[in-house]
Amino acid sequence: LRQNHPETIFCQGKTPEQIQDIMAYLAQHHMNLLGTRADEKAFRAIKEVCPNAEYHPLSRMVVVNRNPVKKNKGLILVVSAGTADLPVAEEAALTAEVMGNRVECLYDVGVAGIHRLLAHNDKLRQANVLITVAGMEGALASVVGGLVSRPVIAVPTSIGYGANFQGLSALLSMLNSCAAGVGVVNIDNGFGAGRLAAIINEDPR
Amino acid sequence: LRQNHPETIFCQGKTPEQIQDIMAYLAQHHMNLLGTRADEKAFRAIKEVCPNAEYHPLSRMVVVNRNPVKKNKGLILVVSAGTADLPVAEEAALTAEVMGNRVECLYDVGVAGIHRLLAHNDKLRQANVLITVAGMEGALASVVGGLVSRPVIAVPTSIGYGANFQGLSALLSMLNSCAAGVGVVNIDNGFGAGRLAAIINEDPR
Amino acid sequence: LRQNHPETIFCQGKTPEQIQDIMAYLAQHHMNLLGTRADEKAFRAIKEVCPNAEYHPLSRMVVVNRNPVKKNKGLILVVSAGTADLPVAEEAALTAEVMGNRVECLYDVGVAGIHRLLAHNDKLRQANVLITVAGMEGALASVVGGLVSRPVIAVPTSIGYGANFQGLSALLSMLNSCAAGVGVVNIDNGFGAGRLAAIINEDPR
Amino acid sequence: LRQNHPETIFCQGKTPEQIQDIMAYLAQHHMNLLGTRADEKAFRAIKEVCPNAEYHPLSRMVVVNRNPVKKNKGLILVVSAGTADLPVAEEAALTAEVMGNRVECLYDVGVAGIHRLLAHNDKLRQANVLITVAGMEGALASVVGGLVSRPVIAVPTSIGYGANFQGLSALLSMLNSCAAGVGVVNIDNGFGAGRLAAIINEDPR
Amino acid sequence: LRQNHPETIFCQGKTPEQIQDIMAYLAQHHMNLLGTRADEKAFRAIKEVCPNAEYHPLSRMVVVNRNPVKKNKGLILVVSAGTADLPVAEEAALTAEVMGNRVECLYDVGVAGIHRLLAHNDKLRQANVLITVAGMEGALASVVGGLVSRPVIAVPTSIGYGANFQGLSALLSMLNSCAAGVGVVNIDNGFGAGRLAAIINEDPR
Amino acid sequence: LRQNHPETIFCQGKTPEQIQDIMAYLAQHHMNLLGTRADEKAFRAIKEVCPNAEYHPLSRMVVVNRNPVKKNKGLILVVSAGTADLPVAEEAALTAEVMGNRVECLYDVGVAGIHRLLAHNDKLRQANVLITVAGMEGALASVVGGLVSRPVIAVPTSIGYGANFQGLSALLSMLNSCAAGVGVVNIDNGFGAGRLAAIINEDPR
Amino acid sequence: LRQNHPETIFCQGKTPEQIQDIMAYLAQHHMNLLGTRADEKAFRAIKEVCPNAEYHPLSRMVVVNRNPVKKNKGLILVVSAGTADLPVAEEAALTAEVMGNRVECLYDVGVAGIHRLLAHNDKLRQANVLITVAGMEGALASVVGGLVSRPVIAVPTSIGYGANFQGLSALLSMLNSCAAGVGVVNIDNGFGAGRLAAIINEDPR
Amino acid sequence: LRQNHPETIFCQGKTPEQIQDIMAYLAQHHMNLLGTRADEKAFRAIKEVCPNAEYHPLSRMVVVNRNPVKKNKGLILVVSAGTADLPVAEEAALTAEVMGNRVECLYDVGVAGIHRLLAHNDKLRQANVLITVAGMEGALASVVGGLVSRPVIAVPTSIGYGANFQGLSALLSMLNSCAAGVGVVNIDNGFGAGRLAAIINEDPR
Ligand SMILES: Nc1ncnc2c1ncn2[C@@H]1O[C@H](COP(=O)(O)O)[C@@H](O)[C@H]1O
Ligand SMILES: Nc1ncnc2c1ncn2[C@@H]1O[C@H](COP(=O)(O)O)[C@@H](O)[C@H]1O
Ligand SMILES: Nc1ncnc2c1ncn2[C@@H]1O[C@H](COP(=O)(O)O)[C@@H](O)[C@H]1O
Ligand SMILES: Nc1ncnc2c1ncn2[C@@H]1O[C@H](COP(=O)(O)O)[C@@H](O)[C@H]1O
Ligand SMILES: [Mg+2]
Ligand SMILES: [Mg+2]
Ligand SMILES: [Mg+2]
Ligand SMILES: [Mg+2]
Ligand SMILES: [Mg+2]
Ligand SMILES: [Mg+2]
Ligand SMILES: [Mg+2]
Ligand SMILES: [Mg+2]
Repeated sequence: LRQNHPETIFCQGKTPEQIQDIMAYLAQHHMNLLGTRADEKAFRAIKEVCPNAEYHPLSRMVVVNRNPVKKNKGLILVVSAGTADLPVAEEAALTAEVMGNRVECLYDVGVAGIHRLLAHNDKLRQANVLITVAGMEGALASVVGGLVSRPVIAVPTSIGYGANFQGLSALLSMLNSCAAGVGVVNIDNGFGAGRLAAIINEDPR
Repeated sequence: LRQNHPETIFCQGKTPEQIQDIMAYLAQHHMNLLGTRADEKAFRAIKEVCPNAEYHPLSRMVVVNRNPVKKNKGLILVVSAGTADLPVAEEAALTAEVMGNRVECLYDVGVAGIHRLLAHNDKLRQANVLITVAGMEGALASVVGGLVSRPVIAVPTSIGYGANFQGLSALLSMLNSCAAGVGVVNIDNGFGAGRLAAIINEDPR
Repeated sequence: LRQNHPETIFCQGKTPEQIQDIMAYLAQHHMNLLGTRADEKAFRAIKEVCPNAEYHPLSRMVVVNRNPVKKNKGLILVVSAGTADLPVAEEAALTAEVMGNRVECLYDVGVAGIHRLLAHNDKLRQANVLITVAGMEGALASVVGGLVSRPVIAVPTSIGYGANFQGLSALLSMLNSCAAGVGVVNIDNGFGAGRLAAIINEDPR
Repeated sequence: LRQNHPETIFCQGKTPEQIQDIMAYLAQHHMNLLGTRADEKAFRAIKEVCPNAEYHPLSRMVVVNRNPVKKNKGLILVVSAGTADLPVAEEAALTAEVMGNRVECLYDVGVAGIHRLLAHNDKLRQANVLITVAGMEGALASVVGGLVSRPVIAVPTSIGYGANFQGLSALLSMLNSCAAGVGVVNIDNGFGAGRLAAIINEDPR
Repeated sequence: LRQNHPETIFCQGKTPEQIQDIMAYLAQHHMNLLGTRADEKAFRAIKEVCPNAEYHPLSRMVVVNRNPVKKNKGLILVVSAGTADLPVAEEAALTAEVMGNRVECLYDVGVAGIHRLLAHNDKLRQANVLITVAGMEGALASVVGGLVSRPVIAVPTSIGYGANFQGLSALLSMLNSCAAGVGVVNIDNGFGAGRLAAIINEDPR
Repeated sequence: LRQNHPETIFCQGKTPEQIQDIMAYLAQHHMNLLGTRADEKAFRAIKEVCPNAEYHPLSRMVVVNRNPVKKNKGLILVVSAGTADLPVAEEAALTAEVMGNRVECLYDVGVAGIHRLLAHNDKLRQANVLITVAGMEGALASVVGGLVSRPVIAVPTSIGYGANFQGLSALLSMLNSCAAGVGVVNIDNGFGAGRLAAIINEDPR
Repeated sequence: LRQNHPETIFCQGKTPEQIQDIMAYLAQHHMNLLGTRADEKAFRAIKEVCPNAEYHPLSRMVVVNRNPVKKNKGLILVVSAGTADLPVAEEAALTAEVMGNRVECLYDVGVAGIHRLLAHNDKLRQANVLITVAGMEGALASVVGGLVSRPVIAVPTSIGYGANFQGLSALLSMLNSCAAGVGVVNIDNGFGAGRLAAIINEDPR
Repeated sequence: LRQNHPETIFCQGKTPEQIQDIMAYLAQHHMNLLGTRADEKAFRAIKEVCPNAEYHPLSRMVVVNRNPVKKNKGLILVVSAGTADLPVAEEAALTAEVMGNRVECLYDVGVAGIHRLLAHNDKLRQANVLITVAGMEGALASVVGGLVSRPVIAVPTSIGYGANFQGLSALLSMLNSCAAGVGVVNIDNGFGAGRLAAIINEDPR
């Protein structure tokens, strides 16, 4: 697709050897590479074949960014509810950043303490694209969607227990949002959200 | 249980004749009676044996209130999101009222327009018990629960379509609420919510 | 939100009287109005209070468009698989159009006859935002997402039977798409897709 | 909210370092703190920054209770079915206690041996709020709800196997209870039940 | 199988003509016949070919009992919770009766009013086989199972709404019963329960 | 219940210490004891307080049988499909045996090789109660139920993968059996099946 | 695809006018046409534009067979369990027939009366492809699959009630079949099964 | 069944000792043997009793092929989407190969890069039977089914996360395929797919 978009490998469920082979191969054809759901071992295997690879432990991502994409104009804002959602939120933020976007983050602004979120009203309205990351009842997407007039990407997370059913509750909430302009990605799919936000933000017209 | 609590009959799925028989029998032992999920035909059948029965079409309830219970002190506040949730909200309100409570209602205050809800902050904080009624993403319970320090009863409704799965999305949202002090009743169970609110409000100490 | 966005009413499950009242009220404050999931009766009730209302039977929409929004520059392309998906596809197309967008439609291009879709490759690549509408296995979103580099909004429909489970199969397919840049809305939610596409397309920068 | 309510941290899925940081921060602003789902390691990490922290291994809770809340008048009674439900029951009991309530417990009184439960009829009727904790078929909430006229908080647990589906059977049972005055919280959410019971019990009127 | 067991036809979803044909055919080879889920029309069609057919409207059963089976010694007791469960309970009772059993019924003894059930303790302990019929939370099977030492057949019914999910809640409750000696049949399958009870009761040793 | 029925403890999820305590306590009041889902460690802990305890590794059961119940007359036959179902089948067989029954077993007679099952027709018809144990498609209960005229207890197992969903496929199959005289217990509940079979087999008349 | 394969239209959910238009259009390019899930009205609409159309009420199919495909050599055998499964079985049989195959049918041979099925052993072994059609527990596919060495196509039907969940039980059973050589199609998809059987049977080598 | 078909053992969940015993026994009666889901330990145990056993680590299969079946004429083509699907694809390929078939494989041809698949059009059309292996949205079966006129066996895999629900999304997609001639096997059941393909390919006419 777009010239400088990083080629990406989903590392979970692959051995360090497999990851190393694929990365070595990809590094011959692409300037920029991403590894998602990567642990320390996967990183060290990549580092051997891509010496300038960097590891981001919170989002479990490996970034090989040899040809930084030039920045898009709009701001992408990642809004997230709880501490446990941070890995997914960071995956979204980092993905969008590597794809050449200005990214800012608002963390710990869940709907059960609505005033913390409302305190950031100006920032919310500056963003060109927003990503809301939330587990449990996943209500953040609706509230944010109601406050802004730009597109909101909703990422349900699997954070919770019991009737959360591994993210089903947040997923269904977000799909049923009554707010305008909300699109949903898979549970825990921070990468997909970051990429969709980047694509929206690079409006070629 | 409590002396003057109305005896209640769930009319849905019963013939007018069956309803009439049961009501006639109950009227001999109880001063106050309720019929829920009652249509016009059910009402007319009841009216023949309980001449002072009244019909409330929106909540589809029949009320026979021969010995009005004296009012409890606390306020019960019913908060609801969309027009389509009104029958369930009214069922809750009327049930609590018949059980001797002062009840007020805030309608059309969904989370996708959060400022409409926040405009009622004072009223929310006056209530001794709150009932939130919402379908779709059901986020209202969490937001309200975060704004008040009194118990919140959450009623998911079956309003919505698609991934709403007949109220499952709102139900799971409410069960996963991160707000303090939220208890959930069955989908569309306005009656159960009203009754639980009344029981909490009649604190005998 | 945006100045000229039409105010919308979801007509399903409301009586013609209720719809008329709400529309009459809204018509005092908004130039442009939409009624979704409206049948002939609902339309006639609206027509009495909004004489310039128009009815679109395939998408079951009522449009009151007194102040046509000026067109955005980008093209929104609605791509759909089967005849049975047309009402949802048209709902998306009409919503985006009323919100001031140039909209084109590609119908009957399901993945089981992939060459019919590929024949439209140029058109697919001209679009600034794409909406894919599909029931059954819902694979269209992935294939289209792989062909274009602009955002794809995926609308699962409830078309199908048996293991389709009222749209669940298409919904899950779309959420699991491996293509880049796909955001999902609720089953049969053509309105939401059209609105999200419009919001993306009106990039204010 | 209420002045002396303990601030609480859900420890599951956080590293001892993360927990220690959050607790150290919270300890500056709150007199009383709770850690739920905490293991021994989490406790030791907390102990370093909150020397008066205490650990309750059965309920897996850490309590920092520097300013004991004064006792509410009503009794909160925790009723539970099987040995395996004890951690959840204790979590509820301890939470309510730390929030300033008189709490008593009835354990091993499942519905398959109904006379063991009925033997405690007097105690059941003394309580101002009741918490029923049960896995498997979760019938305890209905039976207790039928015996008392005060509010019953129902906590389904994930105890069981097979068609229990990680607590789904008890959850659905409790949501469908025909008894008056039952409110349900999430599967295994002893903390939420204890907190809701405490809020009901602190009736400010 | 057993000589005099009635041959049975499930009438739901068949036309009166189809039912008549099958019954006429069966009447040539079997003395005793049953029609389940039969409406008035089905009955009249059967009556033409089996003049001694009798209709039981509550259980929607047609009985052709030309050669009454001699009675088994043990008592089969049908215990049921709500009025809405009566059709299923009667289907079970009538099936067992036609198969040559002494059958008695205890109706309206749900677990939310446990003392009504306990008042029948002697009767419960006289039965050789028990059938419990309940919708909603389906707790009756566990309570009865705990009171008796003979086999209990549990029939979940689809009575309820919302999180009842057409009988799923009662089904799961009954499968998870901790009481000894409980076997479960399909939702609303009164016929199957009556037949299993009869088979247990006709112990040939 | 019955005088000599063994008291049973479900060991899964309990520590050896907890198990030892409960067993030591129970041993004072009951002659016969069972431990289900017990591993080697649990057994050794029990052995210390109940020296005559025996361990059955395949069924993971501990048996303390100080006062062997006298044998019932009828034969209980356990029929099972695959090797992987053996632990559940053995749990059923051993439970029934300890409760004083003559038990025989037919293993490896799945429906995909129907002639292996039919070869045992005589044995099947000798049994007074049958227990069928099967995972995967769980068809064994229907086939056996069609071959015999005595009660069949169906135990679905969690054996399988993919669309087996941890035993759901076998559970649903067995609940939908068209054969006469089938009662179902929970997934993997060999203990419950053996106990129900024993109760049926001890017909007191 | 293949030259003479009939073009097919799924009539359910389309108006007679829509069906007529599509059929008139298709009739210009294809010799042979099929309409599935067609009612009498749909047939009459088709008859006007395709005078040689024939209607098969049991399978609800319309056949326009102007250029009969020459017969394949192998036999396709349709095996089905209950009367209620006949429409689906006939849809499969007719589809295969119109596609040029010799088709025979074995009806009313469910697994709860296994000897009726076994009596047809010779016929079963003559078939080159088999189609098994069954609702409820769907065990027929496994038993037939174990008796033959040719491919078996399994069609679950939605026949049943309660824990059948609209065909889910039969679907899961068939997907979990331990028999060799079983492929599954969608619930009630007789058409798809007939078509797949025809494709297998027309082996071009 | 067929003379030289290998006898197969499903090794997962069995101890090396159990596997060795079964294999030693089977080796006396069958020339060719397969072990599926076998790890290194299982292989070494088999090797002791079947010295010519070979291990295929990617597909986790053990093959004992003492009497190679002579090749069928048609080509079986295995088409698969992602690297993570390889074990299942290889299980299918190897199974078909051991059963005497010419097998070729097309890997890494997912639908989100449709041109990679279309580049193999000739190969696709040469195959007599095709096996499509895909997780995530599972769209490959529909696209391939639309390109060829021979039977397509669809194998959903459990590859994915979140709303993939362990393979449910791919399973439902494949069951709802609109393409002609698609039969589905269980999630991850490469073995069953290979076996069904082999049976179709050995057309005895
Ligand atoms: N077809 C539709 N699907 C989903 N949401 C809709 C649809 N039509 C309208 N809406 C939303 O529903 C709101 C109006 O809901 P109501 O107040 O129930 O009429 C509008 O503001 C829209 O955001
Ligand atoms: N109400 C019922 N529920 C479940 N199974 C039934 C019922 N009535 C009849 N049956 C069974 O269905 C068989 C007849 O089915 P059919 O041939 O479809 O009429 C009988 O032999 C019974 O085993
Ligand atoms: N394997 C088992 N499956 C189901 N229930 C069991 C099992 N083993 C024991 N039980 C039941 O669980 C009760 C003991 O549970 P517990 O108090 O948790 O040990 C016993 O009285 C039995 O009724
Ligand atoms: N990977 C597999 N998936 C599904 N079925 C299998 C698999 N491997 C073997 N089987 C079937 O399982 C049977 C053996 O099962 P078991 O007796 O448990 O080893 C074989 O006859 C095969 O039909
Ligand atoms: Mg918005
Ligand atoms: Mg609160
Ligand atoms: Mg793309
Ligand atoms: Mg009560
Ligand atoms: Mg009992
Ligand atoms: Mg039988
Ligand atoms: Mg076979
Ligand atoms: Mg094809």
